[in-house]
Amino acid sequence: MKAALFSGPHLIEVGELPDPAITEPTDAIVRTVLACVCGSDLWYYRGQSSHDPGTTGHEFIGVVEQVGADVRTLSAGDFVISPFAFSDNTCPNCLAGYQTACLHGGYFGGNGAPGGQAERVRVPLADGTLVKVPGSGHSDGTMRSLLALTDVMGTGHHAIVSAGTRPGMTVAVVGDGAVGLCAVLAAKRLGAARIIALSRNPARQALAREFGATDIVTERGEAANEAVLALTGGLGVDAAAECVGTAEAFATAFAIARAGSTVGMVGLPHGVKVPLGLMFGSNVGLKGGPAPVRQYMPELLADVLAGRINPGRVFDFETDLDHIAEAYSAMDERRAIKSLVRVSSI
Amino acid sequence: MKAALFSGPHLIEVGELPDPAITEPTDAIVRTVLACVCGSDLWYYRGQSSHDPGTTGHEFIGVVEQVGADVRTLSAGDFVISPFAFSDNTCPNCLAGYQTACLHGGYFGGNGAPGGQAERVRVPLADGTLVKVPGSGHSDGTMRSLLALTDVMGTGHHAIVSAGTRPGMTVAVVGDGAVGLCAVLAAKRLGAARIIALSRNPARQALAREFGATDIVTERGEAANEAVLALTGGLGVDAAAECVGTAEAFATAFAIARAGSTVGMVGLPHGVKVPLGLMFGSNVGLKGGPAPVRQYMPELLADVLAGRINPGRVFDFETDLDHIAEAYSAMDERRAIKSLVRVSSI
Repeated sequence: MKAALFSGPHLIEVGELPDPAITEPTDAIVRTVLACVCGSDLWYYRGQSSHDPGTTGHEFIGVVEQVGADVRTLSAGDFVISPFAFSDNTCPNCLAGYQTACLHGGYFGGNGAPGGQAERVRVPLADGTLVKVPGSGHSDGTMRSLLALTDVMGTGHHAIVSAGTRPGMTVAVVGDGAVGLCAVLAAKRLGAARIIALSRNPARQALAREFGATDIVTERGEAANEAVLALTGGLGVDAAAECVGTAEAFATAFAIARAGSTVGMVGLPHGVKVPLGLMFGSNVGLKGGPAPVRQYMPELLADVLAGRINPGRVFDFETDLDHIAEAYSAMDERRAIKSLVRVSSI
Repeated sequence: MKAALFSGPHLIEVGELPDPAITEPTDAIVRTVLACVCGSDLWYYRGQSSHDPGTTGHEFIGVVEQVGADVRTLSAGDFVISPFAFSDNTCPNCLAGYQTACLHGGYFGGNGAPGGQAERVRVPLADGTLVKVPGSGHSDGTMRSLLALTDVMGTGHHAIVSAGTRPGMTVAVVGDGAVGLCAVLAAKRLGAARIIALSRNPARQALAREFGATDIVTERGEAANEAVLALTGGLGVDAAAECVGTAEAFATAFAIARAGSTVGMVGLPHGVKVPLGLMFGSNVGLKGGPAPVRQYMPELLADVLAGRINPGRVFDFETDLDHIAEAYSAMDERRAIKSLVRVSSI
């Protein structure tokens, strides 16, 4: 099969690998229909974090081709979406809603685990991991939104949930990448009254508005903090979503978080120092991490299929598997919010 | 009037000061009945943090002697309890339940603000700060518990609330000081099914058991972590309350916090580094700070008056204002969990 293969910073190529096979009776083999590139893929693409040579990617949707002997809920031909992490969905951590801490799970994306940017993917713990999509003949728009459920929509939602968002609140979203934009959509969906998006990019601002942002702050650093405080009567926001992971983004999130609020974090922290004195003094909390996308999939899937949310709008670049290097470079050069990769027809 | 006066590490004396007077129309003057010494007073007593020379203390209950022209809800003769922080209870932060972030408030305890270890205390923003205690002729046991509501009981409760405790959870309390013991009581009150208290002191262990602890862990450091994990099937606790403030206590709290749980912190952090990678990887949150005791007072007061909770049991040493130096030294030398100071008769 064809698969994207990483061989070093800025080096993504398409190569041939043996088709994956069932290795555990709980496995399924999924033929990929759509895949995409994640902002977190850029960390190793840019040489800012390590990654084993070989397969990449953790976002994919497709059709089940084969299931192991112990798989009970899926069969060949099922159209499924997969979270970026696999999980049994039966261990105590999964039952508590934290499938990314599954005692028997792990993350897709190479480094010893199956990669999703490939024609086929071996999915461990298939019953616990995959979610079957009802119906057929879904529009391309719906297909894009289903793809967004594999990571960015659930991750944006997790930032908003981790920040303790409740209806009527004023929420700020730091980061205008696909996750940040999905966090705006999630905040709107959960009833936030006012949603402040921080963005300097006109195309991203427009999508933030479409997703429900009521205010756009275009400043950065100290000026951004002042702008948000000015919008909130000097108090700060009721919930702040950190969707980047850099020291600057964290600093902004904490600076604009109102006393008693919580910063929800989903951007993998890089070089971040937590301002514990500020947090303690103002009772500002910090919570988040890898989103338990599997927990959120049923409710978000229902909203996608009903047309209530359209997170697939974050995909503004597309190509096929043969040209996946362009999917990476478009995002690396910020020409694209998020790149979709067409792998096969459903 | 007589007042405790700080003049340097280990130097607390009783001296004479002018009686306080109404300086703002929202002030009240309270004649102190009972006061006490806080674990946080020991930081400057031991020379580990700075404190201006002069008045000290932030925990007191007493009788209103005089009110300013704008005080509406109190009059001379009212028996009142005071949180350790004063607040208007009308600003947006107060209305959100964070009176310790009152836009017009502050903390008792000297350093330019009134001190509570004195015969009389000027209470700013009296309507917002003081809570009138109904009834009269309260037993000494009830009086002790009312005194505990000024700080330690509300602070222990805040740790448990900040940790996201819900009925049926397994909770661990790190710290066996008065706040930690009150956190045990608060966890029991909020329906925790299992409460693990970390303590090496037999007297404190006994009180923890009386307050509702189901398990006592006597180990420290890595051995304590292992013991708690062994008690929780290797998962860690559903909520961890950090009631000390040292680096070691924070490390323990994070090590035993289950994936997806939250560490509730109320011990002022000293030399603590937040393990952000661990937090992110396991979705473990951190939340807390100075307890909004004023928010919690009505519900806790009702429980004290009904005899449902008895937090005054933490006072195991008592003296009078003339001998307040002994109240400090008993706590400093860990001969006492918490020292009560009798100032006047009700």
